[in-house]
Amino acid sequence: MSYIDELGTAAKKAASDMTTVGTKQKNAALEAIAESLAANKSDIIKENKRDIENAKVNGMSDAMIDRLTLTEARIDGMSEGVRQVMALKDPINEIIGGEELPNGLKVEKIRVPLGVIGIIFESRPNVTVDAASLCLKSGNVCILRGGSDAIYSNKCLVGIMRDALKRTGLPEDAVQLVADTSRAVAGDLMKADKYIDVLIPRGGGGLIRSVRQNATIPVIQTGEGNCHVYVDRFADIDMAVNITDNAKTQRPSVCNAIETVLVHKDVAEQFYTALNAKWGGKVKIYGDEICAKYMNVDRPATEEDYATEFNDYIISAKTVSGIDEAIEHINRYGTKHSECIVTINLDNAEKFRRCVDAAAVYVNASTRFTDGFEFGLGAEIGISTQKLHARGPMGLKELTTYKYLISGNGQIR
Amino acid sequence: MSYIDELGTAAKKAASDMTTVGTKQKNAALEAIAESLAANKSDIIKENKRDIENAKVNGMSDAMIDRLTLTEARIDGMSEGVRQVMALKDPINEIIGGEELPNGLKVEKIRVPLGVIGIIFESRPNVTVDAASLCLKSGNVCILRGGSDAIYSNKCLVGIMRDALKRTGLPEDAVQLVADTSRAVAGDLMKADKYIDVLIPRGGGGLIRSVRQNATIPVIQTGEGNCHVYVDRFADIDMAVNITDNAKTQRPSVCNAIETVLVHKDVAEQFYTALNAKWGGKVKIYGDEICAKYMNVDRPATEEDYATEFNDYIISAKTVSGIDEAIEHINRYGTKHSECIVTINLDNAEKFRRCVDAAAVYVNASTRFTDGFEFGLGAEIGISTQKLHARGPMGLKELTTYKYLISGNGQIR
Repeated sequence: MSYIDELGTAAKKAASDMTTVGTKQKNAALEAIAESLAANKSDIIKENKRDIENAKVNGMSDAMIDRLTLTEARIDGMSEGVRQVMALKDPINEIIGGEELPNGLKVEKIRVPLGVIGIIFESRPNVTVDAASLCLKSGNVCILRGGSDAIYSNKCLVGIMRDALKRTGLPEDAVQLVADTSRAVAGDLMKADKYIDVLIPRGGGGLIRSVRQNATIPVIQTGEGNCHVYVDRFADIDMAVNITDNAKTQRPSVCNAIETVLVHKDVAEQFYTALNAKWGGKVKIYGDEICAKYMNVDRPATEEDYATEFNDYIISAKTVSGIDEAIEHINRYGTKHSECIVTINLDNAEKFRRCVDAAAVYVNASTRFTDGFEFGLGAEIGISTQKLHARGPMGLKELTTYKYLISGNGQIR
Repeated sequence: MSYIDELGTAAKKAASDMTTVGTKQKNAALEAIAESLAANKSDIIKENKRDIENAKVNGMSDAMIDRLTLTEARIDGMSEGVRQVMALKDPINEIIGGEELPNGLKVEKIRVPLGVIGIIFESRPNVTVDAASLCLKSGNVCILRGGSDAIYSNKCLVGIMRDALKRTGLPEDAVQLVADTSRAVAGDLMKADKYIDVLIPRGGGGLIRSVRQNATIPVIQTGEGNCHVYVDRFADIDMAVNITDNAKTQRPSVCNAIETVLVHKDVAEQFYTALNAKWGGKVKIYGDEICAKYMNVDRPATEEDYATEFNDYIISAKTVSGIDEAIEHINRYGTKHSECIVTINLDNAEKFRRCVDAAAVYVNASTRFTDGFEFGLGAEIGISTQKLHARGPMGLKELTTYKYLISGNGQIR
């Protein structure tokens, strides 16, 4: 039996046990996890230090080390996150449809857990607790595969969570960590369709592509965000500048920040001039000739730039002949995440909403709102950029499926 | 540009055009297809004869040739099927959620097409028209890859449909056939994630496994049905015999027929004796020792039998110690399709409903009801046995996704 077979078998068993666990018990387990995290800060920080020391030896950048580092305040934040998930409505066993058929059969459609969820992520250890608590609350079992950079932190966090599960009468195998972070085992995990119902990669484009190429398990792609603002001919220029500024610079590292601004030629002079005044060198600009007339352009934008998620204070700017060119550009280069038009023209707003293929399409608002909390869905496990199963922010409901329950008194066909 | 690149590029363009096509126009196209099929029967039958002649040369079985054969009556059936799809409610642009956020942003969640759907199927040419009409009505574009056995029939049918689309002002590339049925091109198709949003294999277990192993596109698995009836200690024996008989013999070749009956030891004598009297040799039985005492058993059932979809007048029978063993057996060998308990005990009914992991769980009714028409969903593109996106019968709604439309007046974060 391979290592993944062992984890998988235990996960299946735990998933089966979870089908009879109610909301009260799940909440008690989450409360125990939140308390244990707070009570074991020194242990967590000790183990986290081992990861940080290794990271320094391996020459990890300061920014990455910062993402890896756990402090007392960050651990409190993790506990707080668990309690937020606890406070969300339990989606399981909700009746989402049903009727009595002419032959007397009663059909109910009820919400049930997906089962076993595999989550592959990079070095941020807070994902470990976030993902596990969302899976638990939605009745799912998770197999977590974090990066080797965070292995000591993750082992410690998962140990604390498993202990809390055990103490509150839940199957401890409902949360499992892939302790062997070798590539071979990651490969086995992606092909463990016998045990795992869904695989969610959380990380950069490279990780997502690798999982999509190698997995035989259904995958939900999350988090790639090549997003755009289109400044229409009928835009309020002040609004367009504010939205572009916010969508680019309020937090450039996140997936719902924009990477390209598309500008209608008739308002190019006005818009570029105003944006240049606002930014004054704060953002590096890759722009075309028209843009270069009014802004301090670093160099011309290339095809590759249009396809790049900079995640930084960098933007591509392109002047377009009209809304059709803008939509075509977005549907060609975008990652189906979040797209915005600034316009006061109803027809153009409607056309953009209908023709742009993305999870979230905005009229006159910043793309930065695509987020589980902002949409009122609560904590999210990621933002889906695929169309199958769930699109946009994935909260608890998006971690469920349904089953049909049919009751009869001897009906046959 | 490869062949699949060509089809894919045309499909993306058509999918974009389909975003502005309304219900009336889609229905007009479907009506034109229904009429054209009826008007071109002799052409269709002529092309179908070429497939049949090839099939005979290749030594295809009579049963398979029958499935391949199109007659006037069967073509009328296809037209009728298209009109049934036409009569279904258009799911597109339905508002399925939404609210106004505290910051004044209006969020709407609306139903939209998946986009481009790839369908890989075996030799039944009626699937070509069924699948295309369901995709059209739900605003999707389809790329159909049928078997080489039906290539002349499929070319003729797709030609008729494309012509009808053109005449009614829809993009003819909304329905495309992969005319090159080589394995290499099928391989390219499964990796065309640049163009195709979802891949649906329709056929046997081998086809489905191959698609799941090779595809980089999200796949919906359909149609594998290793289903069970469990006769509980508290079963009405007459009802149990009737349900077992119906679920096994009413149409053994379909996916919602059962393959194994599980019998509580305390009612084994009564049930097996009554079933033996009912069947008297009509069904071949692979049973254990207890079963063999009361039925004419062909040979003992093996582990392999439990995992086999016979699709024939063959059944495995296993005597179990109780409901837990029955549930364990089903969750181990079943394909998550349709499962039934016969019981009058409320606790056991509830336990079975909750713990059995399947798309459709029955209490006291035949598994044969798992079907789009029976459930009132209308025509189906298949019965999903996976948990992601859709479970059980997949009708028009299950061929859609959603997008969030957010309207503001300059909101930023």
